[in-house]
Amino acid sequence: MAQQLDVVAIGNAIVDVLSNADDAFIAKHGLAKGSMTLIDDKQADKLYAAMGPGKEVSGGSAANTIAGLAALGAKCGFIGRVRNDQLGEVYQHDLRAGGVEFTTPMAKSGPGTGRCYILVTPDAQRTMNTYLGASVELGPAEVDADLVGRARILYLEGYLWDRPGAKQAFRKASDIARAKGAKVAFSLSDSFCVNRWRDEFRELIETRVDILFANESEVTALYKVNTFEEAVPMVRAHTEVAALTRSEKGAVIVRGQEVATVAAERIAKVVDTTGAGDLYASGFLYGLIRGKDLATAGRMGAIAAAEVISHFGARPEMPLKDLMQKQLGAAV
Amino acid sequence: MAQQLDVVAIGNAIVDVLSNADDAFIAKHGLAKGSMTLIDDKQADKLYAAMGPGKEVSGGSAANTIAGLAALGAKCGFIGRVRNDQLGEVYQHDLRAGGVEFTTPMAKSGPGTGRCYILVTPDAQRTMNTYLGASVELGPAEVDADLVGRARILYLEGYLWDRPGAKQAFRKASDIARAKGAKVAFSLSDSFCVNRWRDEFRELIETRVDILFANESEVTALYKVNTFEEAVPMVRAHTEVAALTRSEKGAVIVRGQEVATVAAERIAKVVDTTGAGDLYASGFLYGLIRGKDLATAGRMGAIAAAEVISHFGARPEMPLKDLMQKQLGAAV
Repeated sequence: MAQQLDVVAIGNAIVDVLSNADDAFIAKHGLAKGSMTLIDDKQADKLYAAMGPGKEVSGGSAANTIAGLAALGAKCGFIGRVRNDQLGEVYQHDLRAGGVEFTTPMAKSGPGTGRCYILVTPDAQRTMNTYLGASVELGPAEVDADLVGRARILYLEGYLWDRPGAKQAFRKASDIARAKGAKVAFSLSDSFCVNRWRDEFRELIETRVDILFANESEVTALYKVNTFEEAVPMVRAHTEVAALTRSEKGAVIVRGQEVATVAAERIAKVVDTTGAGDLYASGFLYGLIRGKDLATAGRMGAIAAAEVISHFGARPEMPLKDLMQKQLGAAV
Repeated sequence: MAQQLDVVAIGNAIVDVLSNADDAFIAKHGLAKGSMTLIDDKQADKLYAAMGPGKEVSGGSAANTIAGLAALGAKCGFIGRVRNDQLGEVYQHDLRAGGVEFTTPMAKSGPGTGRCYILVTPDAQRTMNTYLGASVELGPAEVDADLVGRARILYLEGYLWDRPGAKQAFRKASDIARAKGAKVAFSLSDSFCVNRWRDEFRELIETRVDILFANESEVTALYKVNTFEEAVPMVRAHTEVAALTRSEKGAVIVRGQEVATVAAERIAKVVDTTGAGDLYASGFLYGLIRGKDLATAGRMGAIAAAEVISHFGARPEMPLKDLMQKQLGAAV
């Protein structure tokens, strides 16, 4: 019988192309600083031609979370669509080399593997411009029912909602997971994304989501409130667990009447915030899986996030499990 | 009339694929720790399948030096051979985006763009395994006489000597440069490479090279001596300027009877030594071009090297010119 998995995720399979840029570049090209914007192939070519030398690192929000979970020792699977090109091979290699079960067939025709052009400004903020490429056609056909059915937790990114096919994949997978008694975890991804899909996201959270990840701007956008404090009781009423992150102010985690407030980790220098939320989710979910209390799971999220913002790219560079054990002073 | 250039380089055009590995992995796969080994496509596939998740950064020794020089403000050109594939496009983008004149036509058939699989061990040492790919056919046809003829300095990497066509390209370019009164700079690249080509390298240095870059193990291999101190007077007799680097022990620079000893820069944490020698050459050559004294040029080499070993990948992440001005406390 095939192996039980801790977490299976569905997400856009995207190779990040990271480059330094200054605020003048962001302004000149009319980019939405700090957010994720979908761009077409012409916009992608134009932006790439204008931006500086890059570094390529496999990315994609849910895939980053899965890569972090696998680095911690969780058993994971991923569903995402790449093309059978050089970047697709790199992408597949990186997940599999990290121990992730990634069996989605590579597309043999259509657009190339997706890319996210990420401009990192001197304040370490990232501005993301995503050309979905082969991911644009991600749909229910890619949802491997066997893989999803083996998961204890299904993890879904809000970005999926931007494409009709991916939305169907999301629904199909969550139906399978719920029928098997698995938990559904959901990340709100981006406040612009929340603004595009507010009503549907609220319905999803009320009907299908057990574990919610959101940052301050996303959760306040979700409920159209002005302050984080107003949003907390609203989200608490609708999900089993919510991990609400606030960058350097740390995170608030709620589960029923239980609340844990966890400080951000101190780090010497924030280099690139790409993947901070994704890796927070890795650490936090890993804590939940291992039965840690909310405060410990939150700390694990903060440690994983701190690692990834200390260098370029949203995949861990340090052996995450060793780092976690060292920081917590205990086996994880 | 076309623009005069400070430095034009010829080198293998290689995309680095960097990954963490432990010493057991290096031993198990029989890799030559700390050195560069040429591998074929089968070995490349096998090694890639075994290694961990990677990061892709444009590389190639001479190209790294040129990228660093351009980041400092020098006017540069590069000659190298990539295929018209995704990695070739990335490679071309990265040099051009840095301001380098890179006009070598992309190969339309034959092997894909070259890759170097770099294993970074916990001691920050890098072990390089190069699949030359499209670079294997670099030859005199790629030597653009106009581009080379506009250079004040022609920069050549020792690695070129490993392929007959590249060796011819080296000779053709250095003939052009010398006829125009330009200086020829040469990096010994790797002690294994020196052992393969000792006699030819010595002859080259005595007859064609004005500025030599070598590290301690390369220069002692060149003259088959046991100590650095024995090698210094030998190299001094044969080149106009020699910059001899000794990792954390700094560097010794000789020019006729002049000698400068320059300490290594202190850095918080060495992450990955890939490109240390290449970026040393960037800083040092930039100093020479700007008429700095030997000690200042050496310090500039050390500052550029320190930047590149503080992160994964052999291309600078910090704005190198700003960093240099800050460290030296003066305009560069």
